[in-house]
Parts: sequence; C-alpha cells; structure tokens
Amino acid sequence: MSFLNSRKIAVIGGGSWATAIIKILCEQPNVQIRWWLRSKTDIEHIRKFHHNPSYLSDVYLSPKKVKVCDQMNDAIKGAEYVILAVPAAFVEESLHGLQHKHFKAKRVVSAIKGMIPGENALVTDWIADKFQVALADTCVIAGPCHAEEVALEKQSYLTIASTNGDTAKDFSGLMTCRFVTAKPLDDLYGVEYAAVMKNIVALACGITHGLGYGDNFQAVLVSNAMQEIGRFVTALDPREREMSSSAYLGDLLVTAYSQFSRNRLFGNMVGRGYSVKAAQLEMKMIAEGYYATKSICEMNKKYLVNLPVTNSVYRILYEDLSPVHVMEDLKKQLN
Amino acid sequence: MSFLNSRKIAVIGGGSWATAIIKILCEQPNVQIRWWLRSKTDIEHIRKFHHNPSYLSDVYLSPKKVKVCDQMNDAIKGAEYVILAVPAAFVEESLHGLQHKHFKAKRVVSAIKGMIPGENALVTDWIADKFQVALADTCVIAGPCHAEEVALEKQSYLTIASTNGDTAKDFSGLMTCRFVTAKPLDDLYGVEYAAVMKNIVALACGITHGLGYGDNFQAVLVSNAMQEIGRFVTALDPREREMSSSAYLGDLLVTAYSQFSRNRLFGNMVGRGYSVKAAQLEMKMIAEGYYATKSICEMNKKYLVNLPVTNSVYRILYEDLSPVHVMEDLKKQLN
Repeated sequence: MSFLNSRKIAVIGGGSWATAIIKILCEQPNVQIRWWLRSKTDIEHIRKFHHNPSYLSDVYLSPKKVKVCDQMNDAIKGAEYVILAVPAAFVEESLHGLQHKHFKAKRVVSAIKGMIPGENALVTDWIADKFQVALADTCVIAGPCHAEEVALEKQSYLTIASTNGDTAKDFSGLMTCRFVTAKPLDDLYGVEYAAVMKNIVALACGITHGLGYGDNFQAVLVSNAMQEIGRFVTALDPREREMSSSAYLGDLLVTAYSQFSRNRLFGNMVGRGYSVKAAQLEMKMIAEGYYATKSICEMNKKYLVNLPVTNSVYRILYEDLSPVHVMEDLKKQLN
Repeated sequence: MSFLNSRKIAVIGGGSWATAIIKILCEQPNVQIRWWLRSKTDIEHIRKFHHNPSYLSDVYLSPKKVKVCDQMNDAIKGAEYVILAVPAAFVEESLHGLQHKHFKAKRVVSAIKGMIPGENALVTDWIADKFQVALADTCVIAGPCHAEEVALEKQSYLTIASTNGDTAKDFSGLMTCRFVTAKPLDDLYGVEYAAVMKNIVALACGITHGLGYGDNFQAVLVSNAMQEIGRFVTALDPREREMSSSAYLGDLLVTAYSQFSRNRLFGNMVGRGYSVKAAQLEMKMIAEGYYATKSICEMNKKYLVNLPVTNSVYRILYEDLSPVHVMEDLKKQLN
C-alpha cells in the first residue's frame, strides 16, 4: 500500500484513549497516522521503542503506520481526519495557534467526553464555531469502551455519531477491526451529551460508594440517572431514542460500574471525606465529570429539566455541602 | 400493640431473601410473622437462638414478632398476606396439600424470581389458577435488592407490583422502613417477567465473563438484554413503560453486575468449560435462570420476539452447543 493511497489521520493527545484509538486504526491495512503528543520524553520513547511509556505501555505502535510529531502543524497537515483525544480542559490550549485554514477539507473527530470549561460547549460545537468547520464534518467516538480492554483486544463496541450519515459510516469503517465493532448513529447531540453526563453519574456512584451505600442503591441511582440523561437530551434535541442501546445505556454502564473510572475514584474520595481540593491534588488530574457538572447545571438554567443526580453532585462539588446530607436528600427523590 | 390489632403475615421459605423480608417486616411496630421453613434443624436453631443458621445469620429475628412453624397450616392460618419465598422449582412441592380454602381471604405475595418449571407460568398466575385466588389479590416483590445488603441495613428500594393498586400500596407500606423504600406499581406482568428474564441475562454475563469477555462487552450485552426484555414484555402486555426505571433496569443491574448472583456464578462455570451438569452439581443448587431460559424460549414460540441473548443461553444450556461458538454468533447480533 503506497503512502499516496493511504488514509491520513491525525491523532491529538497522548493518553490511554488516544493510544487505544491508534491501536484500533493500525488494524487497517491502509492508514498513516500522525500523532501529536505534548510530552517530549514520551515522543522520544515512542520513536525509539514503539510503545507509549505513560499509557497502555504494552501496546506496540508500528513505526510503519504511526509517526509521532512534536509540532501540531506536522501532525494535522494533509490529514483527512483530525481526532481530538485530550481532556476537554486542555482542548483550547492544545489547539492554540491553529486557525480556520488548518482545518480546511478536514473532518474533526472528538474522542473527548467532556465540555469546554467556561464555554458550556460541546467539543464538536466549539470546533465548528471556532474553526468554521461544518458540523456535518465533525463526529464523536462514544463507548461503551475502556481503553484498557482495547489494549487487551477484548471484543468492544463503539458508536460513531455525526449529523452526517456518510461521515459516521466512513469513520465507523476505520474504527472497525478484529476486536472492535463500530456502528454509525445520526444522533450527535444525544450521544455527546450522554457521554458527558455519564461522568457525572460516575462521580455520584463514587460519592455514594465512599459514603457506604451499596449495590442496591447504586442500581437505583444508575436507573434514575439514565432517566435523567433521557430527559435532558430530549429537552435539548427532541427525537425518538432507544435509551437502552449501547450508545447511551452501555456507555453509562461501563463507566458507572468501572472501578477504574477516574470520575468514580474522585467521587469516592469526596464521599470518604476528602475535600474537593484535596481529592484533586491527590489524583494529580481533574476528572472530566467535575467540569461537566458545572456546565450541565449552567445550561440547565435555560432548560429547567429535573436533574436530581446532577444537582446533587453540583451541591457537593461547588457549594461545599456535606455529601452525607446531600445524598440523604437525593435518596428521597429517587424511585 | 395487641396480637388482635397486628397484621398477620405468613412467610414461606427459609432462604436469604425470606430472611431479609422478615427483617424488613420486623421494622413495623404491628406485625406478627409466622414463618414456615422446610429444615427442622434450622427451625430448632431459630427457636433457640433467634438467628437463621443457614442464611444472613447475623440478622436477629425477634421472637416477639417471628414465630417459626414446621406445619404449613400453622403458618398460613389467619394470615392476611402469604409471602412465597422458595425457589420457583420448589413452589409446587412446598404448597402440596394446600387447597383453595387455605387461601380464602388471603393475599398472596410472590418474592420469587422465576417461573413454575414445566408449566411456563408466572408464580402469580399459577397461584391464581391453582388456588382460585383473584389475580388482584396477588402481588410481586421486585428489586433491585440483594438480601445481603438488607441484612446490613444499606439503603434499598423495592417495587411492589400488582394489578390492584390498593394491594400494591398497602403491601408497599409494610415493606417500607428505615432502610427500605418500597414503591407500588400497577405493572404486574412487566415487573414479573423482567425479574424472571434478568436471571437469564446474569447467566449470559457469567458465561461471557467465563469465556474471557470484558466489561466493554458486558455493557453492550446488558444494553441489548434490556431492549430484549422490553420487546418481550411489550409483546405479552403492551403498554407504556419507563424501562430505565428501578423496577426494570435497576433490577437487571443489581443482578447482572453482582459477583454474588448464583445465576452469574453458574454461567461463569459453564463459560469456563464446566458441563451444565457438572456446574449444577458443583453449585449444589440450580440457578433460577436455568429454568427461566427454557420457559421463556417455549413461551416465545407463540410470540416470536427477537431474543438473541435468551436464545444464546438456551443453545448453550439445553442444546449443548459450545459457549465459544454461540457467543461468537451472538457478538454479531449485538449493537
């Protein structure tokens, strides 16, 4: 396969999800991946040893298909797809200096499950607005999918959502391989908001677990949260949705029931009595759900949807109320 | 509170769920419980030490409220409610010798999550038919609820479903206490079939886990199963249902994600290569989902609902097909 006929894809971000996506893409016979990472030492390591030293370090990254770049421009130049896989809080900083022209004739894929902090904007909306990319040229990769299990080649499923059916279908093809089945879906907003809100639910699961609530309570919490997500996305973008499908329920389950979820871990620390600040320091990074909680609550001032789970997390994280009392209160609102 | 003014309740069965239900009922100030157990040694132990030696043995069973009986007639005589909490496979045997007259002016509560084997009948339907109890005088207790967490007084939620709103409401009152919130619902069949089918899903989760599938796959399996349950109950009893609510989704989650589920454990052994017979011998009891799988598949010959998960479990358990191949096949049907 010559370089000319290959599909050129840029991946932005050096975390576990970026690494997993690259592993999936490498299963295609005809891809050329340009990979931008922030860390110079990681770049050096990958160039020398073809493994990411910081995340999923057992994954082999073929130098025939993957070229790491320390310059953003080198990574995205000539790419058909630009895949964003940095935490939502770092999107602005990572893309600093890029302009409209850099995204011309490119499609942008968000692999980010969060909103741009301070802007209360979905990543796709923000990209479309900031770089004048047509929304139809964007799509999102949603789960249910732990990066760790992709590394182990465990059978996984992805949802590729876009307002443009062709984009969703084409990119699904790129993400389907021996151990991953990716399905296109036309519900960009529903999938993206559900992916954002699931991290808030994982926080709530962590908090209640930290407080000593058990599996019985968690099942009720997750069921109520599923209904809450359904109400919110319906208010924003009303349409028929099968909320029990993998793109919504599945994505929530894999996060809410994961012991590895950073959001759940962060919530757990808060539930066990850590202050929010202390938990953030201890974790060395801020869980996506922390920002998502604020964004969704601020957006909801306009929509006024009943969001008991999200509101409870907000009270604990931003109004410094006691997790014990807030959850006592939530208990009465669940059914 | 005199004995005359108290609410008289019979509980049939000596397992963990029966014990947990008795613990909840004992929180009411004015109940008198007659408890029938099969095991004579357990009866002796409870009379002497006020603990069930076989299940939830840390739960104190106040002799002021709980009287154990070795004769079924003694237990149910004069009872307002008769709660059935034996495995579905033993219902017929346990109630052998009872007649219509024994159930006169009584309401029957099924705490059983299975169907009468060989009859393909829900417990409530079977009771109504066999003992001429009006269906409106029956109800079911559904989860999401592990008995073990009730023993620990962890906040739990129950659903009490009946075709008769008054029965559901009244019995919900009896099952609500400091650590349990019980809510009435008028969807007897929906709740009962969902409770039956969740055990099949737990079997499927166990089998795939035993085969080495991970959490990503399980999230997709559970999402698809949730849709499958929705399709089946809609075919049987069409009406609007919020399938994401605790009574349906919550009940499924607490079972499918439980490491303690007997159904999941049984499935796991089959997935790891045990024959069905060997797994049953090893477990010393048969998981409810084993019978449920057959009953649902036989019923579905009439309804012809698309049930890929249930059918896959059937093929493995009853047609002796290889779990590896059946699940390879199922993989392609999930979305």
